[in-house]
Amino acid sequence: SRSINLAVIPGDGIGQEVVAEGLKVLSAVLPQDVKLETKEYDFGARRYHATGETLTDADLDALKQHDAILLGAIGDPSVPSGVLERGFLLKLRFAFDHHVNLRPSRLLPGVDTPLKGEPAIDFVVVREGTEGPYTGNGGTIRKGTEHEVATEVSVNTAFGVERVVRDAFARAQARPRKKLALIHKNNVLTFAGHLWTNIFNKVAEEYPEVTTEYMHVDAATIYLVTQPERFDVIVTDNLFGDIVTDLAAAVSGGIGVAASGNINPSGEFPSMFEPVHGSAPDIAGQGKADPTATVLSVALLLRHLGLEAEAARIDEAVAADLGERAGKPARSTSEIGDALAVRVAG
Amino acid sequence: SRSINLAVIPGDGIGQEVVAEGLKVLSAVLPQDVKLETKEYDFGARRYHATGETLTDADLDALKQHDAILLGAIGDPSVPSGVLERGFLLKLRFAFDHHVNLRPSRLLPGVDTPLKGEPAIDFVVVREGTEGPYTGNGGTIRKGTEHEVATEVSVNTAFGVERVVRDAFARAQARPRKKLALIHKNNVLTFAGHLWTNIFNKVAEEYPEVTTEYMHVDAATIYLVTQPERFDVIVTDNLFGDIVTDLAAAVSGGIGVAASGNINPSGEFPSMFEPVHGSAPDIAGQGKADPTATVLSVALLLRHLGLEAEAARIDEAVAADLGERAGKPARSTSEIGDALAVRVAG
Ligand SMILES: CC(C)[C@H](C(=O)O)[C@@H](O)C(=O)O
Ligand SMILES: CC(C)[C@H](C(=O)O)[C@@H](O)C(=O)O
Repeated sequence: SRSINLAVIPGDGIGQEVVAEGLKVLSAVLPQDVKLETKEYDFGARRYHATGETLTDADLDALKQHDAILLGAIGDPSVPSGVLERGFLLKLRFAFDHHVNLRPSRLLPGVDTPLKGEPAIDFVVVREGTEGPYTGNGGTIRKGTEHEVATEVSVNTAFGVERVVRDAFARAQARPRKKLALIHKNNVLTFAGHLWTNIFNKVAEEYPEVTTEYMHVDAATIYLVTQPERFDVIVTDNLFGDIVTDLAAAVSGGIGVAASGNINPSGEFPSMFEPVHGSAPDIAGQGKADPTATVLSVALLLRHLGLEAEAARIDEAVAADLGERAGKPARSTSEIGDALAVRVAG
Repeated sequence: SRSINLAVIPGDGIGQEVVAEGLKVLSAVLPQDVKLETKEYDFGARRYHATGETLTDADLDALKQHDAILLGAIGDPSVPSGVLERGFLLKLRFAFDHHVNLRPSRLLPGVDTPLKGEPAIDFVVVREGTEGPYTGNGGTIRKGTEHEVATEVSVNTAFGVERVVRDAFARAQARPRKKLALIHKNNVLTFAGHLWTNIFNKVAEEYPEVTTEYMHVDAATIYLVTQPERFDVIVTDNLFGDIVTDLAAAVSGGIGVAASGNINPSGEFPSMFEPVHGSAPDIAGQGKADPTATVLSVALLLRHLGLEAEAARIDEAVAADLGERAGKPARSTSEIGDALAVRVAG
């Protein structure tokens, strides 16, 4: 018999509600012989207001003991922009070396898309998670004066780029279509762009079966709305990945169903799974949030822990549930969670 | 009587074809008393292959003598990525201080959009053109080794941000809806983000009639496909502007109709007008390119030079032409140019 020792971070706003449903479905899907232990952590706006802390060294030590982390959402208008993002979310991704930020996009039957023609969307974005413009490198001089200068430094290393490019090639090789697109802006960001492009082309030689293409990020946004079916696996940097995955979510059913994993493939640190959406304070506490993205993030978590059959059961349950939604009255957060829990248990 | 002394840069690929039509329509729309002088420049891939040059100091001196510049497209697969972009396009934008990169998006009647429901799209993006991640600041160490590090530095100044933010507020104030959105990523790029946000909020106090909102760039891509009608004027940095304007073009009829101006508002240097699309080498020389984006760029050029009535005639001619396209066989580049020339002259 085995056990999962899970850290649970509900966070702010709708995070609380959607995580509760994620755990409900997780409990329902696990076989008897897998023991689930959970420990809840109070990170987010409340902790910040109460103590001024976002994520301490002691917190990191505690989180490190877990097999994985399930996160709801972090962020609240009462906290200045950047404090929780840099002080918690990004701090954790960097501290736990979550360099593979995995974001699948599938347009499931019955799900509404803003695009005409119901395109066959089924791709996964491998977003680099520990480098690029997200390092916090940069600064400000003469702040608040008419002579202020602010810089942001995108830092890209061969080490960091190669490991995420290799991860993406391995994923492309394992998929039926075996296609991989690199998205960057190598005609303008020539230093980082050439590093990415050269490593991509070098690793490509080891994967002769994988069909590759390169695309500038601006052109990629066009293809994501005009030909999203052309994508299979995408690999890209941290900032471009942030942008294209929100757009990808929008065209494939909305951020209500977009899941993500912040993965440390070596297992040295626990990986973290979270819906792509934010804390949505405007609808918090009203039972209106769709927990589907969190439930799909639980599937990514199970897959990461080697529980493929259970992950697949969740994916199927979600697909079935979404397929039956059209024309029915909207259900509450917990009603959707209940329905999914019944399906995965059945 | 007045005159326009125009520099014409057809460039590469379809640039040649679309610029010919742009000039055809320009000649047709100008009143008798406006004398048009043009001088053609051979910048782009051919010049680069023949001489190794992209844009010399002597070239800049020559271009400086003109009232405005009309550009087709620059870029060819035979030239390494970045050489013409950094060596010509960006060099010119920086040398002539084209800090207002103006990109209107309108979904005109009869034009196809990939979005359901034919949204009422009518906004303009004011993209900063001389700062941000486009400065070419950065570098590479240990190139080609496993220890390579490549950086890109986004440089943002109060001077540069304030002037473009002011331009955007003035444009918003002059439009019926008077709305302005700032797009950035101030929760992650906190140094540059705070500079942009603070200046935006400061200038907003001088424009009490303008309704403002702030939006992260990732969220903006969602709104551009789910609620594009919410936008009126957008102001954003150089890289985010590059990305959102391609997406904006995609949802409002495609890059075949997306025009842009690289504007130096003080008039110290000539402004440059160009279609948003590239040189499209795959269809070059076949008469397949749509010259509409170039013709609309000519309208922006005329408006910049104070010829508002002529600019409006072009906009109306394009709207009428687009409105009659549906269901008709595709026309060649010059057939479309001919039709537009007839309309503006009539
Ligand atoms: C909240 C923010 C720091 C985060 C990011 O930019 O990565 C979010 O947008 C995401 O995509 O997970
Ligand atoms: C070709 C490239 C340098 C350019 C840019 O990134 O600005 C283009 O994409 C554009 O939008 O005009």
